[in-house]
Amino acid sequence: KSSFDHKKNPHRRYNPLLDEWILVSPQRANRPWQGQTEKRIEEKLPIHDESCYLCSGNIRVNGEKNPNYKGTYVFDNDFGSLMKDDVEFPPQKSDFFSLQPERGINRVICFSDNHSLTLPEMEVEDIKNVVDLWQKQYEELGNIDYINHVQIFENKGQMMGCSNPHPHGQIWAQSSIPSLVARTQENFKAYFEKTGKSLLSDYIQQELEKRERIILENEDFVAVVPFWAVWPYETMIVSKRKIENLIQFSETEKLSLASIIKDLTTKYDNLFEMSFPYSAGIHQSPTDGELHPEWHFHMHFYPPLLRNAEVKKFMVGYEMLAEAQRDITPEQSAEILKNLSTVHYKTK
Amino acid sequence: KSSFDHKKNPHRRYNPLLDEWILVSPQRANRPWQGQTEKRIEEKLPIHDESCYLCSGNIRVNGEKNPNYKGTYVFDNDFGSLMKDDVEFPPQKSDFFSLQPERGINRVICFSDNHSLTLPEMEVEDIKNVVDLWQKQYEELGNIDYINHVQIFENKGQMMGCSNPHPHGQIWAQSSIPSLVARTQENFKAYFEKTGKSLLSDYIQQELEKRERIILENEDFVAVVPFWAVWPYETMIVSKRKIENLIQFSETEKLSLASIIKDLTTKYDNLFEMSFPYSAGIHQSPTDGELHPEWHFHMHFYPPLLRNAEVKKFMVGYEMLAEAQRDITPEQSAEILKNLSTVHYKTK
Ligand SMILES: O=P(O)(O)O[C@H]1O[C@H](CO)[C@@H](O)[C@H](O)[C@H]1O
Ligand SMILES: O=P(O)(O)O[C@H]1O[C@H](CO)[C@@H](O)[C@H](O)[C@H]1O
Repeated sequence: KSSFDHKKNPHRRYNPLLDEWILVSPQRANRPWQGQTEKRIEEKLPIHDESCYLCSGNIRVNGEKNPNYKGTYVFDNDFGSLMKDDVEFPPQKSDFFSLQPERGINRVICFSDNHSLTLPEMEVEDIKNVVDLWQKQYEELGNIDYINHVQIFENKGQMMGCSNPHPHGQIWAQSSIPSLVARTQENFKAYFEKTGKSLLSDYIQQELEKRERIILENEDFVAVVPFWAVWPYETMIVSKRKIENLIQFSETEKLSLASIIKDLTTKYDNLFEMSFPYSAGIHQSPTDGELHPEWHFHMHFYPPLLRNAEVKKFMVGYEMLAEAQRDITPEQSAEILKNLSTVHYKTK
Repeated sequence: KSSFDHKKNPHRRYNPLLDEWILVSPQRANRPWQGQTEKRIEEKLPIHDESCYLCSGNIRVNGEKNPNYKGTYVFDNDFGSLMKDDVEFPPQKSDFFSLQPERGINRVICFSDNHSLTLPEMEVEDIKNVVDLWQKQYEELGNIDYINHVQIFENKGQMMGCSNPHPHGQIWAQSSIPSLVARTQENFKAYFEKTGKSLLSDYIQQELEKRERIILENEDFVAVVPFWAVWPYETMIVSKRKIENLIQFSETEKLSLASIIKDLTTKYDNLFEMSFPYSAGIHQSPTDGELHPEWHFHMHFYPPLLRNAEVKKFMVGYEMLAEAQRDITPEQSAEILKNLSTVHYKTK
């Protein structure tokens, strides 16, 4: 019997945020690929695009006109997944046909009036303005009586279902706590009740000692490839202090967050020298009026690419039916990301 | 207050197999799409392709030669995600760094020696041969001492990460019960303990009464769009009898399964008159040597397309961070699938 080597032997790792195992197959990284490749999109975008419904002063799909905004701009999504209407619904009990109406608000946040930019290409101060707006939106939406959860996220790149290159993100605020957040909350709670501490405080403290998976660190935040990451270059930004949500951020912390987002997304762009696609989003305490001492602010980055700008990881078949699976190990990805420059390749 | 209408109002539905809610947004189906479109691949394939490593008599990537097989053929995957090796591993306890070696076997199953076919284009008797092989493989692999779960699945189409159009599926057999199967099993168990019956028996009985989401039915199986389906045209084939796994299938039942698979996948191809991509796979009792009276055989089909051959549903951003979300309702999809012919468009 040879002894186990996590760089060579297939194994499973445990994700304590979702209480779930994932499969890691380090030996599989060099299988040949004859499957689908993605288009590399490298057009040079104009600063203002007449046909873009997010640009300053342009007309949107529903006929409304955007103001001549500078910097950030937020508006209600014209094709939201949620509606504000409060509808009559007789409560019903069923094992197999349980259904409940869901109220909510979908918003779009333009990060900049400059159509050609992306987060890594923006100045830290301008990303700070985005964080300011996230904070205000979380507070404003969270204060609405029927809104119990505010999901802030960004889909970047066509590969991630983004239909407009104008730098923007979204907010889906709703009355229920969504499934994955509810699971995270349960695990946060169990840990807090057991130890009196936040799960992520203890986790990042240990990561900071090991230094195997830390990509970036500043005064207030760390960026880490979680031990249980499933996407090839998945990362998580975690606040060092146990902050429950954006409202509790100081001005300095908002600047620190902007700065680590810039550095992390710059590394991403430098990886394959392309505008790196991902879905990213913030997990923070629900706005349900309860106390949430168990919560710890963090931001997930889920990028789909695997080998190069053209080949992504397909989460299909086995992954959809059985369990998430990854090829290169989190430690290998962390090493690669750690060594990348925080100077954007386009500015070199 | 207007009263709730599930054809118009956003709502959440409960999935009793995974104990999880999903978000349904019926009003969102007609938002405009300017995002990524998929390539329509309509090449005419040869019956035998010299460069295909799955065709009869050809050389594989690792230098081995396929036999001159007729019909089905199974072999160990040359680039598996699992390895058979039994490695030494000191048990460890950690809140954040839990890891366990995983043993297993990956196999590839060619459905036919004819490179140009897909399941819907095969004769029922030939699909029956595939079911026979699934049965034999489940039994053979399940009998191996360290194999406790056998996942049979198919990724069809480039969009689903399939890198070779030769009709084939895969088997990943392993020592652990994968995350999603473990969750399904837990919910099966709870229901069985409460009622003494199988969750899916009771569910399909009610679906057969309602007839709102049933697509196909024969002596032994039904194909239904689950009330809680997340993919636009997601379906599930369920055995009418509570069968725990493939070993318990009679010859007639194997033929019935082959026949409903042919009809369902034919409807899929007819939907957009194209070879319809999907991931499909069988959920059945683990091979861990325990009794599993709670288990009920079923097969999931997860197809990614939404509007047409070019536009898929992106499970990104909100879906990755918060909760699965769908636009058209399961009832609308069921209506569309129900009305499609079971005669393949290519043969008309
Ligand atoms: O084994 P294949 O067909 O090369 O690979 C495909 O199916 C596997 C199992 O669902 C996935 O892990 C891969 O991401 C996918 O590309
Ligand atoms: O709202 P958008 O950007 O049009 O749409 C995109 O993000 C949404 C939220 O993650 C997803 O539901 C859609 O599938 C995706 O295409």
